[in-house]
Amino acid sequence: MELPNMEYMMRRRCDSADQEKNELTQTPLLKIWVPWLGMGCCKPNRRRGSSVPQFTNSPTLIVMVGLPARGKTYISKKLTRYLNWIGVPTKVFNLGQYRREVQSYKSFEFFRPDNEEAMQIRKACASNALKDVVIYFSKEHGQVAVFDATNTTRERRVSIVSFAKEKGYKVFFVESICDDPDIIAQNIADVKVSSPDYLNCDKEEALADFLKRIECYKQTYVPLDDEKDRYLVNCVRDHIQSRIVYYLMNIHVTPRSIYLSRHGESNMNLLGRIGGDSGLSPRGHKYATALGTFIKSQHIKDLKVWTSHMKRTIQTAEHLGIPYEQWKALNEIDAGVCEEMTYEEIQDNHPEEFALRDQDKYRYRYPKGESYEDLVHRLEPVIMELERQENVLVVCHQAVMRCLLAYLLDKTSDELPYLKCPLHTALKLTPVAYGCKVEHVFLNIEAVNTHRERPGNVDVSRDPEEALKTIPDHF
Amino acid sequence: MELPNMEYMMRRRCDSADQEKNELTQTPLLKIWVPWLGMGCCKPNRRRGSSVPQFTNSPTLIVMVGLPARGKTYISKKLTRYLNWIGVPTKVFNLGQYRREVQSYKSFEFFRPDNEEAMQIRKACASNALKDVVIYFSKEHGQVAVFDATNTTRERRVSIVSFAKEKGYKVFFVESICDDPDIIAQNIADVKVSSPDYLNCDKEEALADFLKRIECYKQTYVPLDDEKDRYLVNCVRDHIQSRIVYYLMNIHVTPRSIYLSRHGESNMNLLGRIGGDSGLSPRGHKYATALGTFIKSQHIKDLKVWTSHMKRTIQTAEHLGIPYEQWKALNEIDAGVCEEMTYEEIQDNHPEEFALRDQDKYRYRYPKGESYEDLVHRLEPVIMELERQENVLVVCHQAVMRCLLAYLLDKTSDELPYLKCPLHTALKLTPVAYGCKVEHVFLNIEAVNTHRERPGNVDVSRDPEEALKTIPDHF
Repeated sequence: MELPNMEYMMRRRCDSADQEKNELTQTPLLKIWVPWLGMGCCKPNRRRGSSVPQFTNSPTLIVMVGLPARGKTYISKKLTRYLNWIGVPTKVFNLGQYRREVQSYKSFEFFRPDNEEAMQIRKACASNALKDVVIYFSKEHGQVAVFDATNTTRERRVSIVSFAKEKGYKVFFVESICDDPDIIAQNIADVKVSSPDYLNCDKEEALADFLKRIECYKQTYVPLDDEKDRYLVNCVRDHIQSRIVYYLMNIHVTPRSIYLSRHGESNMNLLGRIGGDSGLSPRGHKYATALGTFIKSQHIKDLKVWTSHMKRTIQTAEHLGIPYEQWKALNEIDAGVCEEMTYEEIQDNHPEEFALRDQDKYRYRYPKGESYEDLVHRLEPVIMELERQENVLVVCHQAVMRCLLAYLLDKTSDELPYLKCPLHTALKLTPVAYGCKVEHVFLNIEAVNTHRERPGNVDVSRDPEEALKTIPDHF
Repeated sequence: MELPNMEYMMRRRCDSADQEKNELTQTPLLKIWVPWLGMGCCKPNRRRGSSVPQFTNSPTLIVMVGLPARGKTYISKKLTRYLNWIGVPTKVFNLGQYRREVQSYKSFEFFRPDNEEAMQIRKACASNALKDVVIYFSKEHGQVAVFDATNTTRERRVSIVSFAKEKGYKVFFVESICDDPDIIAQNIADVKVSSPDYLNCDKEEALADFLKRIECYKQTYVPLDDEKDRYLVNCVRDHIQSRIVYYLMNIHVTPRSIYLSRHGESNMNLLGRIGGDSGLSPRGHKYATALGTFIKSQHIKDLKVWTSHMKRTIQTAEHLGIPYEQWKALNEIDAGVCEEMTYEEIQDNHPEEFALRDQDKYRYRYPKGESYEDLVHRLEPVIMELERQENVLVVCHQAVMRCLLAYLLDKTSDELPYLKCPLHTALKLTPVAYGCKVEHVFLNIEAVNTHRERPGNVDVSRDPEEALKTIPDHF
């Protein structure tokens, strides 16, 4: 993502030292050093302020391949969620939706390979989807498009590849193979019979029709072939492709639950101070005990417990009576020079910083500290391991929990820093169909509120009173 | 890696608050919070102080498959270097070495499939190698063994799998396929004709013999087959296996050079202060200009330049006149409470910390800061991208450069924190055969020395004078 020019224009002071050749100046929001050329502007567009370099790949078209009910949509949505979370703009183009827009579904007959009329409609839909892919890449800053369709014939795949070659897109096939009839049946029951295709339709009838639909595809299905499809795509894997392969290697569909909880209330929480490494308050200890009781009551098989390296999460985990592992990556966002301050003190000492944070809380980086965006990159290995594991309880921190939750619930980077993660409330997330069921479990131990809403006025010139309007109560 | 018990035993104070139930205490070296049970001991062996949880996999046997001169040894050594660097103890078991120990090489005849006597010897060698694998896993804390041999027959692979099954090891095959005669010829010229097998042998003769040797293997080679070999190994990929696949997806053999340089001398360097975010000294600016001239003189194709987010690396890169990308992951080690201090001030204010760092510089974590081990984990994505790229110049920092250099030159974690990376000296690393050729280029601009050797006395009770014996001069 390029820096908005605003970020370069917003210089505050301009003393003579700054004007020396090669003198650098730090941008206010992202705290990156850029050359200062005087007169309120800096060299634009050559540097990025993100945590990691932004890899300038040509757009990538991911083409799903597989029979119906093989989890293509599941993989498409999940992969898209992951890529968006790590900052790669990605969108799914589901062929079924295009089809439903032009024709309401009647029966499997539509999918018979000898249904010439339907075949024309299906081709037109594919063509419309690919046209939208072009718009997504050229007008909407998209970087990856996932073409979620069966693409089971070589003819279709060849036509997609020639389309992509013409446009200069990279193509990457992902085939989903599943021969286990139980898993297929479960998948049909979970998502297919409740599809818009079977609105107001008996479940048994829907199932029967869907199975016939699969048979239609089987007649012409040609799986990807190492030898014969190799000519289709360049085997050299670019950055994003190897990330995708790595991600797909790590995900699984075994039922499980992920439990998220912040540490119990800490002494710093009581004082309204952010960051630090304080211990639990008496109520915090009570919560830790209550969390232990709750976790026991859940009778969770092989539960893994993860904490950060910070005292308050480890104290919380100590009450559970379960072995735990510590991740430094789960440490709370580093507030840099604002560590251990109250919001009032931040407003007093760094009023401009406080306003900038309100302006773009996701990208704002604390002086000598981190941004939410930095945190997302730091948490990526945690997410990868979370995908590998089954039942896990993560005992973490407010900002960290927001990042994890945004991944799990597919929230945008705008929503992420304002997600509500109150103290003393455990979340239980259980994957269902294409998303996650969320249960909020308040364990009935009082705690201070630590959530600060975005105030109405985010201007650097605002009154302190306006800046502090939304801060939560504290001692 | 489990914490040594010493780490738990070394408690200094024992006030009453510490003895309260669930009270935690921080270990001195790794700064991890552990329960304090009084009387100088804490619950052992349940927690780790590493940056990331230590994944407790059963030992993994990686079995290379492929004809001679297909890069199996190259991959084995490179993968082993990577795994050791990220903290997974790994060792290569090269069958050729076992063979040479029992029999000096005469000619390709030894490898003829109908040479019964030789076949017995070869089997015995494989068996000896696997016996050493058992010792490595059971006695030497090994986690991954790479069996570097052709393993081109299914019979051999079946026997390895049954050996591993009996011992409870995971097996993972990596096949190296190469049909490009030029690459194979180059490989033979680079590493095979200079092998101990061809000591005192004419290069042409060696080449001819080696080509016949390959033909011997071709007669019985059965490549891995998705269908037929699937029964051999569990397809579920564990943590370490997916890491390995990801790594192998990212490496390439295109010739290139990696240039490493620290920033030019900074104002903090002049003052003998560590960390901070100061700008370049006048000599630092001169170095940056000289580095630009040197880089231009190298006529490097498509050079990528990476910096950290710190002012001194960005100022250095600004002199190059080449676009650059900033990685937060390349920032210098976070010295926490010791940031911007001189070594004298650290000794004055935190004498025990200073001694602990000298005792185990790789694992020592600064209070509220990082260890070298943390840094290695932070740099892992940088190394992965470095493997993907071709010519790259990394403008970084002393501790960061030591970590990168340890990866590139296969140095142990003991050697790593003491690698010499002086200011104003660029390193040019060019992959050759199984390693890297290193050229040190001092650009003839004076700079302060920032290298502090490990002093002889590392005891916490040492005199300040002894602690400061090895500190470099500064203003």
